[in-house]
Amino acid sequence: MPSDVLPGTLVIGGGIGGLSAALCLALRGGTVTLAERSKSFAEVGAGIQLAPNATRILRRLGVLDKIIPLAVRPRRLVLADAINDRELTSLDLTDFPARYGAPYLVLHRDDLLSALLEGCQRSGVELHTDAHVTRLEDTGDGVVAACADGREFRAEIAIGADGLHSRIRKLFADDEPVNSGFVAYRGAVPMEQVERHADLRDVVAWLGPGLHLVQYPLRSGRMYNQVAVFRSPSFARGDKDYGNPTELKEAFAGCCEHVRESLGTLSIENRWPMLDRPPIPGWAHGRLALLGDAAHPMLQYLAQGACQALEDSDALADALAAAGNAGRPPAEGLAAYAARRAPRAMRVQRTARTWGEIWHVDGVAKLIRDELLIDRDVADHRHVAWLYDEAALERNAS
Amino acid sequence: MPSDVLPGTLVIGGGIGGLSAALCLALRGGTVTLAERSKSFAEVGAGIQLAPNATRILRRLGVLDKIIPLAVRPRRLVLADAINDRELTSLDLTDFPARYGAPYLVLHRDDLLSALLEGCQRSGVELHTDAHVTRLEDTGDGVVAACADGREFRAEIAIGADGLHSRIRKLFADDEPVNSGFVAYRGAVPMEQVERHADLRDVVAWLGPGLHLVQYPLRSGRMYNQVAVFRSPSFARGDKDYGNPTELKEAFAGCCEHVRESLGTLSIENRWPMLDRPPIPGWAHGRLALLGDAAHPMLQYLAQGACQALEDSDALADALAAAGNAGRPPAEGLAAYAARRAPRAMRVQRTARTWGEIWHVDGVAKLIRDELLIDRDVADHRHVAWLYDEAALERNAS
Repeated sequence: MPSDVLPGTLVIGGGIGGLSAALCLALRGGTVTLAERSKSFAEVGAGIQLAPNATRILRRLGVLDKIIPLAVRPRRLVLADAINDRELTSLDLTDFPARYGAPYLVLHRDDLLSALLEGCQRSGVELHTDAHVTRLEDTGDGVVAACADGREFRAEIAIGADGLHSRIRKLFADDEPVNSGFVAYRGAVPMEQVERHADLRDVVAWLGPGLHLVQYPLRSGRMYNQVAVFRSPSFARGDKDYGNPTELKEAFAGCCEHVRESLGTLSIENRWPMLDRPPIPGWAHGRLALLGDAAHPMLQYLAQGACQALEDSDALADALAAAGNAGRPPAEGLAAYAARRAPRAMRVQRTARTWGEIWHVDGVAKLIRDELLIDRDVADHRHVAWLYDEAALERNAS
Repeated sequence: MPSDVLPGTLVIGGGIGGLSAALCLALRGGTVTLAERSKSFAEVGAGIQLAPNATRILRRLGVLDKIIPLAVRPRRLVLADAINDRELTSLDLTDFPARYGAPYLVLHRDDLLSALLEGCQRSGVELHTDAHVTRLEDTGDGVVAACADGREFRAEIAIGADGLHSRIRKLFADDEPVNSGFVAYRGAVPMEQVERHADLRDVVAWLGPGLHLVQYPLRSGRMYNQVAVFRSPSFARGDKDYGNPTELKEAFAGCCEHVRESLGTLSIENRWPMLDRPPIPGWAHGRLALLGDAAHPMLQYLAQGACQALEDSDALADALAAAGNAGRPPAEGLAAYAARRAPRAMRVQRTARTWGEIWHVDGVAKLIRDELLIDRDVADHRHVAWLYDEAALERNAS
């Protein structure tokens, strides 16, 4: 049943951010239309990590139970030295339900997307594919979105969840994605193709100067996800073909045998430049707001891209409901959402950049880092509690 | 009384290394001649730190009691952030006599030199000043040293203790001092000139990107020693006048108020380039050997230059006595001395370079370093025990 509390909402973008926003609103009775530019809902064929700050929200959305049979609950997060093949530090994940009230999961991106999509379908979200919104207008008493093919959507508010290259963000900020000069190859392979590997129950990030390799199991351990990332020398020289497979191989040539061998099963069909944008404070203006990567695209080093989009979606529904219940206009709800979320998302964006630097250091900085990590008490949660802990999240927001 | 165990020895160089070597040998009954190039025995007008690995030896030489009334026993070694004016970590020095069997002292370099000189005079070392040895020859059955003014010294063995710019080292290695590009200003000022300062009982090293300032009290707290060190931008450009006082001021301009104010009382009359040399293994050849800075010049970051020279002197006397008692020729004693000391001195040289880099890092490396230092358990002696502990010293030597 449609809510008289929540405004009718147009969500632009059908990735993890857009679908989760639509689902959060629909489950509270909101009328939601979602416009996805592609011909179908699909994700990159690779894995995703979901920390407790995300799985807590997915549980409330009824999605957690759907994905758990497909997901893996890894035993540990491990940082290892890609050169010397030694473990630097780790974080036990098995006590996360007790500690943070929700599990740490890894799963295939498509499996998460499918579960969110199914939720949206079941809760009455009006889903449109092949709907490329090229113009969006706040008319004062509503929003009008025009598609490239002439279709028009009208709603009370609109949420731009159209990702890193967001077109909607242009209404908020005059910025462009920042290329970190790093290139990623990623993909999941059947476990039987993996010849030699670290403990299969772990999420392992192998760190080296200017490179890293992340590995973890997917689909109940039947697949193995691998992401190889390196600083492209030819990007720095301005080559258009930067980060090609030859460069990938050269970058990892000095790594330990395990890491080098892992590259043999890495898909080299696609490569991704590693981009983010600087934080912006203003995600809401009148009847329009941004969400997920459109609002705060981040580097991957904290594995928080999707998690932060889920936090956005949850906070958005909260703020719109609070405004509606108080008889305040939806623009106030959007402003409250942005005010609550921006400081935390900004911190995650910035910390992700810093961790990227920490992961990739060389020389004396590597020496200090390794000392710090090896010395670290593995039971020390100071560096992650601010991300995963619900109480810390509330403190961040206030 | 002259010993029939120890060979008659010529020590070339009358700094802390040369005088301590002469004293060690003379106290065991050796006949020692010492040739100092300058017109008098003198040290730079600044402070020196003596760790337990040095004060232990000074006690055996009867020197410790002489210097204690002039020295200060600092309460702590402190590493502080020169930019943010905060303490990063510290090491309690008050329990050093119990822990390492000897105190940690700071004193004026001249006070140490005078005490060593007095010991040499009392124990019959033949001291020559204005004696610039320009030629040294191992004749097979002895050594002959010729001075610039025509004087000649003969002995059974010769020890080159002629410092960083050692002429004797040329007989062992074809190397030159390596300029780190850092410049030091140092000097001690009367305590009443010091307007504002950190805890006067501490040895404080203020660390910043490409710079540091070390401060500690001298002469029973009546003087304050200061050493300001920075990476000279004009050295990198090849300027001859690199590291001038204008550069000093510019380098420290971004520091906290305390550090900037401290520069006001720093003597800018003299500046020193910070030099060392790469380690060499062969300090002994026939009847000749190197000692102190001539053997292993090091950067100052561990404050071990004089301490390692004292360890050399002690080990040299031990090895010569052992060879003599066994009826072996002195060349074997010298070879045993070098074999025992080189690995440890090499480790100190290399660790000093690494600490220099750690002290001067910027950016993300500074972030990691500060985290490491702030997190450090101040009761943790792992990073210093290998230097200060007598048992560890024996392990290093074996």
